Amino acid sequence: MIATVSNTTPQRLVVAVGGNATHPEDIRGTTAEQEQIAARTARALLPLVQAAHEIVVTHGNGPVVGKILLRQYYAREHVPPMRLDVCVAHSQGGIGHLLMQGLEDELARAGDARRVACVITRVAVNAEDEAFQHPRKPIGPFFTADKAEELHRALGWNMVEDSGRGWRYVVPSPKPREILDLELIAGLAAQGIVVIAAGGGGIPMVLRADGSYSGVPAVIDKDMTSALLANRLGIETLLILTAVSRVAVNYRKSDQRELDTVTASELAGHLKAGEFAEGSMGPKIEAALKFLAGGGTRAIIASIDEALPAIEGRAGTQVVAG
Amino acid sequence: MIATVSNTTPQRLVVAVGGNATHPEDIRGTTAEQEQIAARTARALLPLVQAAHEIVVTHGNGPVVGKILLRQYYAREHVPPMRLDVCVAHSQGGIGHLLMQGLEDELARAGDARRVACVITRVAVNAEDEAFQHPRKPIGPFFTADKAEELHRALGWNMVEDSGRGWRYVVPSPKPREILDLELIAGLAAQGIVVIAAGGGGIPMVLRADGSYSGVPAVIDKDMTSALLANRLGIETLLILTAVSRVAVNYRKSDQRELDTVTASELAGHLKAGEFAEGSMGPKIEAALKFLAGGGTRAIIASIDEALPAIEGRAGTQVVAG
Repeated sequence: MIATVSNTTPQRLVVAVGGNATHPEDIRGTTAEQEQIAARTARALLPLVQAAHEIVVTHGNGPVVGKILLRQYYAREHVPPMRLDVCVAHSQGGIGHLLMQGLEDELARAGDARRVACVITRVAVNAEDEAFQHPRKPIGPFFTADKAEELHRALGWNMVEDSGRGWRYVVPSPKPREILDLELIAGLAAQGIVVIAAGGGGIPMVLRADGSYSGVPAVIDKDMTSALLANRLGIETLLILTAVSRVAVNYRKSDQRELDTVTASELAGHLKAGEFAEGSMGPKIEAALKFLAGGGTRAIIASIDEALPAIEGRAGTQVVAG
Repeated sequence: MIATVSNTTPQRLVVAVGGNATHPEDIRGTTAEQEQIAARTARALLPLVQAAHEIVVTHGNGPVVGKILLRQYYAREHVPPMRLDVCVAHSQGGIGHLLMQGLEDELARAGDARRVACVITRVAVNAEDEAFQHPRKPIGPFFTADKAEELHRALGWNMVEDSGRGWRYVVPSPKPREILDLELIAGLAAQGIVVIAAGGGGIPMVLRADGSYSGVPAVIDKDMTSALLANRLGIETLLILTAVSRVAVNYRKSDQRELDTVTASELAGHLKAGEFAEGSMGPKIEAALKFLAGGGTRAIIASIDEALPAIEGRAGTQVVAG
């Protein structure tokens, strides 16, 4: 490994936090529990917020959308379900509210008058994206085979068996093409406002024949959207925060090896060799590579507990051009 | 009636639209139906957006929160319910998404490059507000007496009999005190961005002992919040759009009289005399009076179908100082 990483803290930053950063892993989770987790996430993000002049925080929404879907399921005979793009919009509001409060509390405790904003963010996808023909992204909880059958009949959900743990609803996960609310995010971030944006990968929209946009039932990978957002903002550093401290090859084998600094071409080789689990580390690796290919300088995949050392080049897996 | 109204179109405007402006009156309503209604609302708002340099659009959320509550009810044994402030945040995301798209479509059709933003908005209320001791605001659908009893037992909901139509869940509706995201809204509006803000009256927050804020289970009247927002923005004109063309006294009596231009003191007299239904026209009248008392010049209550003539002084009820 010959690549080197600057140890200066970047002034402009996009940080992507997981859907579990505001919600317990388990599908349960009261509002009070979510607030505690949002507060913990905000504490982890505070040093980044204080270090960067411009910072945009994106977040996943898996557990929250999972609960929205479950509620829609149990109420299906009484209340019409919302289309999936509207579910994503709901999750942006709810998670944004809790995360915004967590961040403002941390800033206030640190005596920092910086403000936080949460903007509803729509992201264009291609109506011809092959994902619409082949829905493969599992969302929401696991169901038994019988229940899966019933859900398919009652709500038209595509169900697939997932990792031996049960059946899950799968939806299209098209690639993000444009951040429709980019100018808004850019303007706020440039003013020094901490921007929470593109929650859950953004509200998926497709271009209609008349040139306008329409929401579609899909979800966009939040790391892919974060990579595109950082590219479009001309931001050189993308930090993807997750539950593990580094990307590993030969994962869970006797010769498991954690990557500290790695070039894009080396990492692409590992990806091609099938080193990374689809739906888990895989999309993060793809997002990191996409970001570098789109003009980014450094993508970091790190644990949320090591956010500051990670951007200082002292923790996490640092992916650089080459 | 000696008050006169300027017939020049205001350059700065807060417009409050009802919760039904993006959702059918009835509790059902698919996403496709909601999109159609949002498009209709956007068509009605377009001339205002084109006339005003600064415009902030607020909206109610009654039917959407009603459906969220129903889903929570039917899923209550499987998914923990969200606290009411989180439900409001969800509704801001969902309604904002649909209304934003409707407005951008209309602007695009008119060849107008103006952008629309939806910002999650929190509003501080007083923890000592008497509303917390006396929840009186009905939200969500009507239930039978038996179901009301069950809801009270299962979810702790306060239920009251409403207008002979059944039982409803009642929640505290404290007065709005501060718009916590005011600077954000002001900055965006000043740039000419059409701002969708304070949906559902805003996410209710109270100040904690340590100086930070926390969400609380309540809803804030959207017209009262709109009045406060317009006052704080120093905007002189507040337009409250509803389903009727004018405020009426002796409502539904043989001598019913519609008000065209009315002074605040005259209107306050009618309010005191019990002319306006609580939970219906009453809060709009209170909001109009509050707005004028807080420095506003003109509050207009008008039909959404007459939005432009209303701000031109040719339709609706025009409330002026005096």
